[in-house]
Amino acid sequence: MDVITLRRDFHRHPETAFTEFRTASKVVKILRSLGYSVLYGEEAMDCDVRKKVPPITIMEEAMQRALRDGADPEILQKMNDGLTAVIGILKGKKDGPVISFRFDMDALPITESDDLAHLPAAAGFRSQYEGFMHACGHDAHTAIGLALAERMVGLDFEGTLKLIFQPAEEGGWGGANSIVSKGIVDDVDKLFCLHLTQSLPLGSICGGSTGWMATTKMEAHFYGVSSHAGTAPEKGRNALLGAATALLNIHAQPRFNRSETRVNVGVLEGGTASNIIPDHAKMIIETRASDEEINKDLEKRVKSIIKHSAEMHDLNYEIKVTGEATTIYSDSELVNLVLEEARKISGFSLFQEIGDFGGSDDGSFLIRRVQERGGKATYMLIGSPMSTRRHSPNFDVDERTLPMTVELLLNVAKRVLFIS
Amino acid sequence: MDVITLRRDFHRHPETAFTEFRTASKVVKILRSLGYSVLYGEEAMDCDVRKKVPPITIMEEAMQRALRDGADPEILQKMNDGLTAVIGILKGKKDGPVISFRFDMDALPITESDDLAHLPAAAGFRSQYEGFMHACGHDAHTAIGLALAERMVGLDFEGTLKLIFQPAEEGGWGGANSIVSKGIVDDVDKLFCLHLTQSLPLGSICGGSTGWMATTKMEAHFYGVSSHAGTAPEKGRNALLGAATALLNIHAQPRFNRSETRVNVGVLEGGTASNIIPDHAKMIIETRASDEEINKDLEKRVKSIIKHSAEMHDLNYEIKVTGEATTIYSDSELVNLVLEEARKISGFSLFQEIGDFGGSDDGSFLIRRVQERGGKATYMLIGSPMSTRRHSPNFDVDERTLPMTVELLLNVAKRVLFIS
Amino acid sequence: MDVITLRRDFHRHPETAFTEFRTASKVVKILRSLGYSVLYGEEAMDCDVRKKVPPITIMEEAMQRALRDGADPEILQKMNDGLTAVIGILKGKKDGPVISFRFDMDALPITESDDLAHLPAAAGFRSQYEGFMHACGHDAHTAIGLALAERMVGLDFEGTLKLIFQPAEEGGWGGANSIVSKGIVDDVDKLFCLHLTQSLPLGSICGGSTGWMATTKMEAHFYGVSSHAGTAPEKGRNALLGAATALLNIHAQPRFNRSETRVNVGVLEGGTASNIIPDHAKMIIETRASDEEINKDLEKRVKSIIKHSAEMHDLNYEIKVTGEATTIYSDSELVNLVLEEARKISGFSLFQEIGDFGGSDDGSFLIRRVQERGGKATYMLIGSPMSTRRHSPNFDVDERTLPMTVELLLNVAKRVLFIS
Amino acid sequence: MDVITLRRDFHRHPETAFTEFRTASKVVKILRSLGYSVLYGEEAMDCDVRKKVPPITIMEEAMQRALRDGADPEILQKMNDGLTAVIGILKGKKDGPVISFRFDMDALPITESDDLAHLPAAAGFRSQYEGFMHACGHDAHTAIGLALAERMVGLDFEGTLKLIFQPAEEGGWGGANSIVSKGIVDDVDKLFCLHLTQSLPLGSICGGSTGWMATTKMEAHFYGVSSHAGTAPEKGRNALLGAATALLNIHAQPRFNRSETRVNVGVLEGGTASNIIPDHAKMIIETRASDEEINKDLEKRVKSIIKHSAEMHDLNYEIKVTGEATTIYSDSELVNLVLEEARKISGFSLFQEIGDFGGSDDGSFLIRRVQERGGKATYMLIGSPMSTRRHSPNFDVDERTLPMTVELLLNVAKRVLFIS
Repeated sequence: MDVITLRRDFHRHPETAFTEFRTASKVVKILRSLGYSVLYGEEAMDCDVRKKVPPITIMEEAMQRALRDGADPEILQKMNDGLTAVIGILKGKKDGPVISFRFDMDALPITESDDLAHLPAAAGFRSQYEGFMHACGHDAHTAIGLALAERMVGLDFEGTLKLIFQPAEEGGWGGANSIVSKGIVDDVDKLFCLHLTQSLPLGSICGGSTGWMATTKMEAHFYGVSSHAGTAPEKGRNALLGAATALLNIHAQPRFNRSETRVNVGVLEGGTASNIIPDHAKMIIETRASDEEINKDLEKRVKSIIKHSAEMHDLNYEIKVTGEATTIYSDSELVNLVLEEARKISGFSLFQEIGDFGGSDDGSFLIRRVQERGGKATYMLIGSPMSTRRHSPNFDVDERTLPMTVELLLNVAKRVLFIS
Repeated sequence: MDVITLRRDFHRHPETAFTEFRTASKVVKILRSLGYSVLYGEEAMDCDVRKKVPPITIMEEAMQRALRDGADPEILQKMNDGLTAVIGILKGKKDGPVISFRFDMDALPITESDDLAHLPAAAGFRSQYEGFMHACGHDAHTAIGLALAERMVGLDFEGTLKLIFQPAEEGGWGGANSIVSKGIVDDVDKLFCLHLTQSLPLGSICGGSTGWMATTKMEAHFYGVSSHAGTAPEKGRNALLGAATALLNIHAQPRFNRSETRVNVGVLEGGTASNIIPDHAKMIIETRASDEEINKDLEKRVKSIIKHSAEMHDLNYEIKVTGEATTIYSDSELVNLVLEEARKISGFSLFQEIGDFGGSDDGSFLIRRVQERGGKATYMLIGSPMSTRRHSPNFDVDERTLPMTVELLLNVAKRVLFIS
Repeated sequence: MDVITLRRDFHRHPETAFTEFRTASKVVKILRSLGYSVLYGEEAMDCDVRKKVPPITIMEEAMQRALRDGADPEILQKMNDGLTAVIGILKGKKDGPVISFRFDMDALPITESDDLAHLPAAAGFRSQYEGFMHACGHDAHTAIGLALAERMVGLDFEGTLKLIFQPAEEGGWGGANSIVSKGIVDDVDKLFCLHLTQSLPLGSICGGSTGWMATTKMEAHFYGVSSHAGTAPEKGRNALLGAATALLNIHAQPRFNRSETRVNVGVLEGGTASNIIPDHAKMIIETRASDEEINKDLEKRVKSIIKHSAEMHDLNYEIKVTGEATTIYSDSELVNLVLEEARKISGFSLFQEIGDFGGSDDGSFLIRRVQERGGKATYMLIGSPMSTRRHSPNFDVDERTLPMTVELLLNVAKRVLFIS
Repeated sequence: MDVITLRRDFHRHPETAFTEFRTASKVVKILRSLGYSVLYGEEAMDCDVRKKVPPITIMEEAMQRALRDGADPEILQKMNDGLTAVIGILKGKKDGPVISFRFDMDALPITESDDLAHLPAAAGFRSQYEGFMHACGHDAHTAIGLALAERMVGLDFEGTLKLIFQPAEEGGWGGANSIVSKGIVDDVDKLFCLHLTQSLPLGSICGGSTGWMATTKMEAHFYGVSSHAGTAPEKGRNALLGAATALLNIHAQPRFNRSETRVNVGVLEGGTASNIIPDHAKMIIETRASDEEINKDLEKRVKSIIKHSAEMHDLNYEIKVTGEATTIYSDSELVNLVLEEARKISGFSLFQEIGDFGGSDDGSFLIRRVQERGGKATYMLIGSPMSTRRHSPNFDVDERTLPMTVELLLNVAKRVLFIS
């Protein structure tokens, strides 16, 4: 099982949050074939804690597409309604610690570049699902997870290996929390999350990371009254006036002293025709902060802006929290362990205790759960530099990092599970 | 052929601009069966002058729907690409004046009410095409036109009758201008347009009308650069910031002394996900003014606002004019003629020379063309009061006005064509 | 007493609302010298109904300036606190009708042009009070009133002549209402108001007028919390963010079908220094509408926008109504009377019943009071065209209209008071 | 000379940028009386490099006030036009290093609290100049400088002591740069700047500091056309619409990844009256960033927003840079020296190499100049905690820090100048 071939296959078939049917089905099949006991569907996640799911029509389309492209119908049946988490469990010969690795599987709603300077386009593994793209490297993460799974087979170890293949990391809809809520990590002693990152040079490894911001994702609706824009404009209540006012004021919130903050209105949609006063507008928003309390403050401010922008124009409104993640603190014991193992692997040449990521990841909830129950956790970063940014149409990873990373995770697992 | 039955059939099958396939096909068939010579497709309109057409997928869906619901496939073939205008011509026994009536056929993208206090819902002729609705009375206009056509058959007259069934009145995409450009009204001596209106009591007839505003419809696009909203917000160029700024400032344009003006941003759509800086936004806008020059001024101001809102945020932009109509002045000769004939018809009891409509209609271009070539024209209004406004989900006409109006048009035609 | 010399003297000494000390003092002296009985100070107005008065320091400066420039100190004493209304009363030999004319005296806070193409600059009667200007013609109105006063002396008439010299017409702070409240017009049978207007050609006379909009003037305050913009921006509550949001949304209110409306944020001031989050902003706003109820609706909308713009940014706020005027309807009896008398005067050559002004005047409250008590009233317009608009630095009147207008008012008074 | 008494005297007489007449006059007199050679007026600063000066009337008022409150008229004469920098120079018996300390003297346009919980109010040394206040501790800095001056007299040292009393630190109008440009620090080997700070506990000393943001202060003007808001709103060009649009969009600029940034529109003023379309608006803005290049980027974005907000509404505009400061890096040699000396002084108990200030200071230009010419410099922070923030009406310093700080600076000077 070649990790790069696997990654390219996933890259060609990007699936967004809670529609990772083909990906998850493939993960299940491979893990089973390797002899893992596999939990998926309702065994792997608690569907009620999800903050948001895609519309039923989108799910059905994705399901059909997955079937067409080789997913196993029997497996898919248990994933109905977006239950796409997969847990692979391998027990050692003796009891011992429980070690867990987390890999995320979902893609983004971005149309991939067809520029020939973009390797996936040039080498023929560009996304086949127009409008969707692995623009964050989760294809590589998933491939690394499966390659690690294979390498662990047949080893003589003490304890338990739990490989977590998580859906819906992007957007914070609850991919991680639905796994937490099912109790999957309650017995984990040592949890390792990871991310390839553009912002470090090739050969870099950070044993832990900081800069993981707490985040809240919201969906807001403004409800007004439509009217003929020519003959009775004053009878309408204009939902887009309220929404545009909210948008500007959300972005105009103050910077915070000594805390990174972010706000973004990622989507705004409203209105039906030029001659009708718009009676509805929908807005998708996120806040982030390097401090959880400040993120809560920002969330509160955004809600107040939406409320008053709506009421100013005599509109009704609704706000739903659709996603969240929290901050992450890496345990130094695991940070050091990772660095020690990385030093033994050819290819790693730059060693750093804590790297700075600057994003959000709901894996934070897995980490927090493990730490709350007395376990240790870290979120490591692996340098994989390319010219463009995450979430852009030309994003790519440096595939040379994949085998190195598999090797590193293998060493880490061996060390924890007493394999000499 | 019962005018109310016809109207209810059209009401059940509302079709928007340049997708009036079922409606136009039915009009062709009826006119042919009555012995009219019928122009349609490329014979009836010049497709190149259209400012805007629906996307190909929408057209195809509408075409399929029309076929399913009884449209004639052979006729439809000539209407491909939205060529849905229909002209019915009936020549008298001798030469004489050319009289023309204009009827518009298109519906709106509004979801019809299913409240049982709404007659179409209660009486079973609510729209069968979800999301579309005859919320402006064009269903009644078309039915009136066909009923008039039938009544004219077999009469002994001097001159020519031209019945114009126009597509795409709403939005001003060019339904009327495409007919003007084909030369259809170049030989018309007397042109009558009409509209049922909520704002006059039952029994009212205005021989002419004022308050028809010049209007411009525009579509604007803002193009930015996407970026990860958490890790590189400053690398993005935010299309929605530009669009929201434009939206507020377009609405904030000054009122004009002694001219009615209107501005509306009817649609705003942009962005893809909460964690991506939005790289595109689309906006649909209209301006109106009771003076053509002032409308041109407003159009210019809106374009400048869009340009500078975009450039302020380092965005590219594009503005397309997708529709227009001009002002209307009714000739008093025809105004008086209409009123004289209306006085002879039972049911009309309130007579007014000029009514005030307060909307826009690209029939204005038909009227202007006729007047420029030395003919006369008027736009009459017929009271058809119901409780709600045009372009709202509960809109309805008072069906009692339909037979009265057919009678009136018949009388007008007879008078012009020397039928005693 | 030459009307043009008088007008130029007033033009040189422009005084704004409730600081017309020099002007009013001069009016009192002239009327007394002509034998009128004169009411002024508390006898002429009820100071409590005023919606707004200038700050005490402004009043004191204006008072000193008036003393310096020749005002009578004894008269001024009674005008303390801005009691600048003056009523001149002349009784005939016999009882008879009470006729009244209204003249406004106040100037505007505009800096007059010193361009030599501007007659007052070229001819040496430009404003001597920098920053203030008669940019609306009230200097001419006051001069006309005094010239009329002189011409009426010695005539043998039946009834009573009441000349009202009103302060504070601009801004609607209550110049007229304070006179109404004192009962000054309770016994008036026929009231004539007038305005010279740029929008009519020389020689034009309108016996009455329309287009007088109801208006509300408001002052709003936004109260936030200041903070260091570098080290604690998030601790501040930014009053200017609230005010700017309100400003855009006030202007973005819908146009109204079939009613002229206006909104203006005439003044916005806030903040203290670049590095301090602004904790206060003040805003001066007006609404207007050709329908009184619609003006009330607009006023309500503006208040709601201010409230929610403030609360959105966690600000406190305050809104005061500082001025108002209502609509005006001219009685046709007086309209005709004016036109008949104008026809007898050389210089008037264009006669119109009702002219359209398009502004607001709190003389509307004098008119409404007279009409409510059974009297008649009109507001006439006299063409006085010059190249620029009211309220601009180059505004001027055509002085040729002054003697003509005096003659007209004299004729009107004679006719009403039975002077043959 | 008691440092606390001195500080309270300065506190009672707060003077803003380039009007520190009374303060500077007192500094000159004291330094002279101690035997320092004193440079002031044109000898101390280059008046042409100042980015901004107060209006002439403000300067004259301040000058009169200073004369009234005891400033020396002869000294003041040389400070005309705001030349308020003072340099005190004391030479040792032998040649040696040049050591310099910088103290800033200016106050802020804030009205001081009269709450009795506020010590200056309770103890009778609240600001006597209404509307002005020492809300940043420069009163204490100046007092410390003079107390240090006194303590140095009579000591036997090698080298030169240069005490810099700087005007106009707030707003970055060029107080420091005008001293740099005069060459005052060209021969300085070791420069020490300092600030008392609320954010550290009593007893804290940081030998150096970070978090000094680069900043740009700008003044923008929007020029439109006034018009009557009732009769010709469309003829106006509304300066406040442009300014409010700019204000919202300036605040809505993106956060920057991994750099502190700030934007503030500190002042907005425009318009004259409710019924006049505003033809002018003035805006005072600042940007800050912990990286100089990012501050330049922000400055450029702000300028673009102003340009396009103006042009969108057909306005002219003008932007002036009125102030600036850059980032600061403390030399570790001096950082250590400060800490070593602080450890010897009773009262200092918390020692930190580098503290984080989070503001801007144009002393940064003094520091940069010294460093560019091969000297060393540091900016030390001294904990002086009170309950409120800088630039707020209740700001105060903890006076116990004053004698301690004098002692520290004395030790530092002795060490550098070889005094045993």
